[in-house]
Amino acid sequence: MLAIENYQQEFVDYLEKYSTVKEPKGLYDPIQYILNLGGKRLRPVLTLMAAEIFGSDYKVALNAALSIEVFHNFSLVHDDIMDDAPLRRGKQTVHEKWNLNTGILSGDAMLIMAYQLFENYEPKTFQALAKLFSETALKVCEGQQYDVDFETRNDVSVSEYLKMIEYKTAVLVGAAMKMGAIVALASEKEQNSIYEFGKNLGVAFQLQDDYLDAFGNPETFGKQVGGDIIENKKTYLYIKAIEFSKDEDKVKLRKLFSETLEDNHSKIEIVKTIFNESGSADATKKAIEDYTNKAFNLLDDMAISDNKKALLKAFGNNLMNRTV
Amino acid sequence: MLAIENYQQEFVDYLEKYSTVKEPKGLYDPIQYILNLGGKRLRPVLTLMAAEIFGSDYKVALNAALSIEVFHNFSLVHDDIMDDAPLRRGKQTVHEKWNLNTGILSGDAMLIMAYQLFENYEPKTFQALAKLFSETALKVCEGQQYDVDFETRNDVSVSEYLKMIEYKTAVLVGAAMKMGAIVALASEKEQNSIYEFGKNLGVAFQLQDDYLDAFGNPETFGKQVGGDIIENKKTYLYIKAIEFSKDEDKVKLRKLFSETLEDNHSKIEIVKTIFNESGSADATKKAIEDYTNKAFNLLDDMAISDNKKALLKAFGNNLMNRTV
Repeated sequence: MLAIENYQQEFVDYLEKYSTVKEPKGLYDPIQYILNLGGKRLRPVLTLMAAEIFGSDYKVALNAALSIEVFHNFSLVHDDIMDDAPLRRGKQTVHEKWNLNTGILSGDAMLIMAYQLFENYEPKTFQALAKLFSETALKVCEGQQYDVDFETRNDVSVSEYLKMIEYKTAVLVGAAMKMGAIVALASEKEQNSIYEFGKNLGVAFQLQDDYLDAFGNPETFGKQVGGDIIENKKTYLYIKAIEFSKDEDKVKLRKLFSETLEDNHSKIEIVKTIFNESGSADATKKAIEDYTNKAFNLLDDMAISDNKKALLKAFGNNLMNRTV
Repeated sequence: MLAIENYQQEFVDYLEKYSTVKEPKGLYDPIQYILNLGGKRLRPVLTLMAAEIFGSDYKVALNAALSIEVFHNFSLVHDDIMDDAPLRRGKQTVHEKWNLNTGILSGDAMLIMAYQLFENYEPKTFQALAKLFSETALKVCEGQQYDVDFETRNDVSVSEYLKMIEYKTAVLVGAAMKMGAIVALASEKEQNSIYEFGKNLGVAFQLQDDYLDAFGNPETFGKQVGGDIIENKKTYLYIKAIEFSKDEDKVKLRKLFSETLEDNHSKIEIVKTIFNESGSADATKKAIEDYTNKAFNLLDDMAISDNKKALLKAFGNNLMNRTV
């Protein structure tokens, strides 16, 4: 097995070969642009790693890994339109650099191209990959729809919220790993275990993102700390705070999350105090811990070497910024 | 073999069974809405017919036919956004009835659902269908992009225009028929012949649409006669008229096609006169004839009964509104 940086490098090299000039440029230039904006290439690296964990050469998994990355970028292009986002990774979003129609059409083409990348596999593997891909991609759409629906609802339960982040974010992490297992011809049991591992780690990762958005170190978090509070996003922290708070704080919190302010300094401080004092911050930390452990416990029953289990744990801990 | 109306009925019955209530409603209700707006169901009927022509039961082709129809409706939803169209088949378009984000996301889900419908076939057939589907769908996107590009160009050649309508419209007709051949396990040669048959008929159909837009009978055409002229669309008629006209008429035509007017009555009459006198109208009729005959000639070499050939010709003639 290679180190994570090596998988990243191998993947980026492969992506470069994929990036040839095609006509019509109005359709394909935006696709090359978004695919080459960078990023950690987390999902495709997981596909390559999973293939090697189940005894295959990572090279066999390169097309599946690329499919996952093309799909992920498709979803970014369309989500950025829906969120009216001007920037992605510090650069202009596709619909901003070109226009709305280009964003829609280039995104559509990427979704199709993601399927085409499975054509390099023989029919049985092709079908297994495409089936998993469709199921996952549809859940990502459903998760996005739930996220939109939740914006105008005040009664979102914890379980509904967890289902939303599972669909919108976590299933793709699970699918990325399962695809590696599929091309490595791992057993169905192993395929499902690695899927659940990735999915639970994906939920933990998203919950941690919620937590760090409020309590992260501004110097290392990468995004604006307090961003979710400013935008009144009802994350796990908020839902738990409403659940745990006394009536007085509930009213205060609901009022704060219905306002759009110029200066958010004191709003952020008050909300964070409620998150802390209500026990919501601790509950969130606990949930992150629980999902991470649930992922790690799945490894126990898997028929892979202890070395490889240690590697997956190291990756998980690294992802969760935990130094164990 | 059944009559066309029977295939339509069988298809609509199958579509109804497919239309179950799913969550989240914000994602799936618009999909049911657009799928049930009606229409002639031309493409799926061609899939069912092709399956029976190659010796299979049409029932085997129902999922492939449904996939073609779901894809076609996906492209309508996204195209209507790009064209800013308020109406589709006399009813509100999806983005108009709901909103832009719903149009994008429900469209995305439909593209994925179209692939899922192939899962009912065994791996080899699945791969053949999905591969053809991806290739076709990508061409439809490319055709749409060429169409957008051509709006701001004044030097589009006849061959570029023909490629655009081939990609945007005709390949899907070819693919619909080839899918029927694939599920019927027809030979590769037969699959390709029926694809070319459908594709050439598709080009003829689109050229006829261009022709009727200017010269059709207002009582039977269905759309506003002169619509393309009002919108300055550079169709086959326009490109050929520019090619054939004297300099004086070229200047007149270019000027007319750069204007947006309140009252289009005299513009339409002048343009139609140039189309007629330049020989462009005749050249268009000739091209329609040529593409239709090219399609029909492909039947000669096919290993199917004369009865079935006659049926395909009758369908083609019916489609082209020709009474032979």
